[in-house]
Amino acid sequence: MNDRPAPLDRLRTRVARLGAPLCLGIDPHPDALPDELPRDVSGIERFARGLIEAAAEYAVAVKINVAFFEAFGSSGWAALERVVADVPPDHFLVLDAKRGDIGSTAERYAAALFGLLGADAVTLSPYLGEDTVEPFLAYPGRVIYLVTRTTNPSAGTLQDLLIGGVPLHEHVATWAADRWTDGRVGLVVGATAPAELARLRRLVPALGFLVPGVGAQDGDLAAALAHCDGTAAPGLVSISRAIAAASQGDGWRAAAAASAQSWLGRMQEAGATLPA
Amino acid sequence: MNDRPAPLDRLRTRVARLGAPLCLGIDPHPDALPDELPRDVSGIERFARGLIEAAAEYAVAVKINVAFFEAFGSSGWAALERVVADVPPDHFLVLDAKRGDIGSTAERYAAALFGLLGADAVTLSPYLGEDTVEPFLAYPGRVIYLVTRTTNPSAGTLQDLLIGGVPLHEHVATWAADRWTDGRVGLVVGATAPAELARLRRLVPALGFLVPGVGAQDGDLAAALAHCDGTAAPGLVSISRAIAAASQGDGWRAAAAASAQSWLGRMQEAGATLPA
Repeated sequence: MNDRPAPLDRLRTRVARLGAPLCLGIDPHPDALPDELPRDVSGIERFARGLIEAAAEYAVAVKINVAFFEAFGSSGWAALERVVADVPPDHFLVLDAKRGDIGSTAERYAAALFGLLGADAVTLSPYLGEDTVEPFLAYPGRVIYLVTRTTNPSAGTLQDLLIGGVPLHEHVATWAADRWTDGRVGLVVGATAPAELARLRRLVPALGFLVPGVGAQDGDLAAALAHCDGTAAPGLVSISRAIAAASQGDGWRAAAAASAQSWLGRMQEAGATLPA
Repeated sequence: MNDRPAPLDRLRTRVARLGAPLCLGIDPHPDALPDELPRDVSGIERFARGLIEAAAEYAVAVKINVAFFEAFGSSGWAALERVVADVPPDHFLVLDAKRGDIGSTAERYAAALFGLLGADAVTLSPYLGEDTVEPFLAYPGRVIYLVTRTTNPSAGTLQDLLIGGVPLHEHVATWAADRWTDGRVGLVVGATAPAELARLRRLVPALGFLVPGVGAQDGDLAAALAHCDGTAAPGLVSISRAIAAASQGDGWRAAAAASAQSWLGRMQEAGATLPA
């Protein structure tokens, strides 16, 4: 990696080139593959690699959800290793793993995701505090996104609990912003909660946000684009299931390319109308 | 699994037989292997299998930390699959993975840990709420432990935040106890915070606790034994690094057996003096 620009610099370059922060999400479920692919680990791998080959050119980043490979154990991890190797070198690679453990264990997860797989960024759970984060930051230039306000129906069960009037997810955000100021720690904030997203942006202007939930989960694209960028790091808007769902039938690769190109176009247009 | 008793019934049977809730923790770090083993995935596998073969007879359960295998990618997962197959069938197998994701992704992690690896129990992070838990409970009889109060130095950063005067970790405990009452959801509570452990036991008397942090992390063994059991499910006290650290030199297998036997003896003695 030594001859490549630092991950956030590569991301900035690519965002400037494409004019929108589209992150291609790869979450291949065996029940959602094109008909021609087998519902097993080989089908998952072929779908993931086909999506990247067809659609990555319209994206600044690729986010791979580790669970969909891990479901097949060592065979799935071997497929993940090959899929990761297919991500173009000028793209920013996020491994969506949501790991979170004590320091000595976090160091081993960092060895897997940063050391072995060479990701530029990972998602982490904040529940164990800074010990979970620091072993990942020991890898120079790499980026982590703390899961802060998620897109799922029960997101609020803990994340919206009030601590002195402030929701837990806002507390996570200010804690992260106060502690890590160089842009290498960002937040995962779902587009399905646009009011929370807007408040978090005002609260922690520096941090880059990775925003899932647009598309299949019906999150707010305009809010995602308006709020993903931080002053210390660019943001990402991730589209996963909407592109996968469009990538069906005999021409699924071409359909994936068309869907990603269409999302990029929508983002470029929406971004051009954003208040400066 | 259909001809075997349900996981919690097997655990109860084995606790009754051994008279103490010793859980053998397997967290093999390459820097902590006996000299004769290579510092690579083959060394990790040989150490893990050696510990299980030598020491499992003194334990009611085996807890395997997934990160120490995942650090080696697909080779590590292949080793994990072989190590899991070595766990005796009358033992309760916990995979310490601390996963936590939205429902469709949690379902894939459950496919890996329960479906493929056949664990009796897993550890999960509570931050995303009930959506993280339910896909695991869809596997009949299986058990999950929600990470509640951990052993690491920064455990309190979020876990001790006060919500209307109640620490977040106590809120997690009462939420879990109110929502799942059949004993299949327990808590991970570190022995390094004995006051918090005692309060949690009074607060949620039904839940079984998985208690790490005794031994290398210097947690309180008496508190762990006094408070791990719930009325709906038995508890576990996990010893990982202390047994691994004792298992060195040419006779490391015999040393592992002696260390586990000694910890079992200490637990039996301490348990015999507990107030009824």
